[in-house]
Amino acid sequence: MKLIKGGVTSPKGFKANGFWAGVKKSGKPDLGLIYSQEICSAAAVFTRNSVKAAPIIVCQDNIRDGRVQALIANSGNANCFTGEYGLTYARKMTELVAEELGIKASDVLVMSTGIIGRPFPYEKFKEAVPKLARGLGHAKGASFAKAIMTTDLKDKQVAVRIEIDGKLVTVGGCAKGSGMIEPNMATMLACVTTDAAVSSAMLKDALREAVDVSFNSITVDGCMSTNDMLSIMANGLSGNRTITAKTQQYRVFVEALTAVCVKLAKDIVSDGEGAERFFEIRITGAQSKKQAKEVAMKVANSNLVKTADYTDNPNWGRVAAAIGACGTKATETTIKITFSVKRNHIFINADIGLGAESATVYTCDLTRKYIDINGKYN
Amino acid sequence: MKLIKGGVTSPKGFKANGFWAGVKKSGKPDLGLIYSQEICSAAAVFTRNSVKAAPIIVCQDNIRDGRVQALIANSGNANCFTGEYGLTYARKMTELVAEELGIKASDVLVMSTGIIGRPFPYEKFKEAVPKLARGLGHAKGASFAKAIMTTDLKDKQVAVRIEIDGKLVTVGGCAKGSGMIEPNMATMLACVTTDAAVSSAMLKDALREAVDVSFNSITVDGCMSTNDMLSIMANGLSGNRTITAKTQQYRVFVEALTAVCVKLAKDIVSDGEGAERFFEIRITGAQSKKQAKEVAMKVANSNLVKTADYTDNPNWGRVAAAIGACGTKATETTIKITFSVKRNHIFINADIGLGAESATVYTCDLTRKYIDINGKYN
Repeated sequence: MKLIKGGVTSPKGFKANGFWAGVKKSGKPDLGLIYSQEICSAAAVFTRNSVKAAPIIVCQDNIRDGRVQALIANSGNANCFTGEYGLTYARKMTELVAEELGIKASDVLVMSTGIIGRPFPYEKFKEAVPKLARGLGHAKGASFAKAIMTTDLKDKQVAVRIEIDGKLVTVGGCAKGSGMIEPNMATMLACVTTDAAVSSAMLKDALREAVDVSFNSITVDGCMSTNDMLSIMANGLSGNRTITAKTQQYRVFVEALTAVCVKLAKDIVSDGEGAERFFEIRITGAQSKKQAKEVAMKVANSNLVKTADYTDNPNWGRVAAAIGACGTKATETTIKITFSVKRNHIFINADIGLGAESATVYTCDLTRKYIDINGKYN
Repeated sequence: MKLIKGGVTSPKGFKANGFWAGVKKSGKPDLGLIYSQEICSAAAVFTRNSVKAAPIIVCQDNIRDGRVQALIANSGNANCFTGEYGLTYARKMTELVAEELGIKASDVLVMSTGIIGRPFPYEKFKEAVPKLARGLGHAKGASFAKAIMTTDLKDKQVAVRIEIDGKLVTVGGCAKGSGMIEPNMATMLACVTTDAAVSSAMLKDALREAVDVSFNSITVDGCMSTNDMLSIMANGLSGNRTITAKTQQYRVFVEALTAVCVKLAKDIVSDGEGAERFFEIRITGAQSKKQAKEVAMKVANSNLVKTADYTDNPNWGRVAAAIGACGTKATETTIKITFSVKRNHIFINADIGLGAESATVYTCDLTRKYIDINGKYN
């Protein structure tokens, strides 16, 4: 596997675009589009929050047949808690794109991130879509990546290249992390593209495997958004034989997809609201992978662990207390904690002494800046 | 029920003391003792953390027979993660007290709060216990309350008076909340005394009822300590007929006990680390009390809810997202959120529209000061 410079338009046959449609007061890009010249196998994972934003509901409908050809995303407005109008507008966004590109509205995904509970500025986006579609280009992956940013300080893009059946296969992706514009919460959006040929059923499984150790293994503040979504589109243009079972080719593909997701997930944490330090928390000695992950998440979401100073006298008491709060049988005599600190990267390994399973979770510290970002929006 | 000025020595027959035994570098009180002239029915609740401090283990043994006559407590050292020595010293603390007071060591409780994982400074406490016992007094409830403080800014005491069987009954208490001295975590300790005559079985039930809506309904940072403990001692000196069943007298007693616990619990939150604002979060329309409490706790532990500014434009989107993250069926159409702000007191009521049960939880805000307190200990 080779890491290459690029993003969502690195795989063959994908174009993208992104620019300012007039919604964000800052004048920064707020509307983006990804388009594949061929219809794609597709899969997606969504927030488990019972309060779901309108685009989530529309995407859950449109992804059902496992086919997608385009994806439109906006920042500046979450289209959440926006009632029937919100849902209508989310659907209309897919219709606008379909009309411009000559495809079916049900083959278009829509993502939103931004302020919750504000009327969706549909008219501004409507006006912008024709220009957005006309401007699609193979070199414009970065424009899309920038259009989904909120208070992210950096855009997050990655691409890797592998070989399947002697064909060059590329997997690219971009993501946005925790940020807010005004009264809002962190939202994670990620789009992955590939020219691999993979059935939508296998794509779904592959995505689940990759997400488990990447996007589902990070936390910034333990708060689950209403808009979180990750999608993958596979157009098959690399020419490999379509992956329809868990073959060796499937494993190679999953490995590449996982690398893309882990890179994007880590980037989200590094660029978390107010983040100054990156934490890698590894729990070993657990009775199951599920238990290992639960304990790691508890440690990662402990405000005491996230605020501690690790430079001089690492605070293992706080880590131990967080582990003890998980309802496992871990005690003083079973727990072993080690730390290593390398500049702003803090690695915590806790062996809880109950079994042989492990999990790793990534998070960032809780800083004065987080308080400032999330308190001072008025 | 009448609120009176006082604390753990307000009920008949209780004496207390507290002073500096030389452990805290600050020179502030770090050792306290409560003694009842008659043996008491007793009950206690303990942290559910699987990492338990040594005094917790000793108390769980000593409370088993439902009889207690004295309680010794220290701050400045948690006696947690201190191995076999820690356990031995925790037992020795009860023996020292027993010897001085001419009672059984198994009738003594011991509480500790402070630094985790440091050798327990037993020798200093040993030296101080005789003087501590000699100095016991009816007017020294406050000395005890101050001796258990860590970074609490204020001592927390309360007493109420009720009438049972025509006899005046007093319930008094004190508590310490979230604070740290050095690398440490929040610990909650609370001691309640009463001259009511109540069987230890009924005391246990009464405590459970009172704790549920008080100490188990507060959160400062969602971090569960290794040392949390609440005890109650009832010496029967008020002369009421011993409460041995869930009679009307039992209800009167529970009401008083609940008032004491709720006052202390709210004081802990108001004095939480870095707290500037007090939150009362009420969830209504839940399917069960358990669900209501879980949702309320999720909202109370949301860093986004705790950092939001409520003065101008209350951030209901964050409250809705926290509710949605609980795995209930609450959605945009079922949730109704109202706010009221009165100086530093923020009241959030969310009706989740699923049923008829409710719960109230108290918390404080997450501030720059919390970050500072918990980060800058080196």
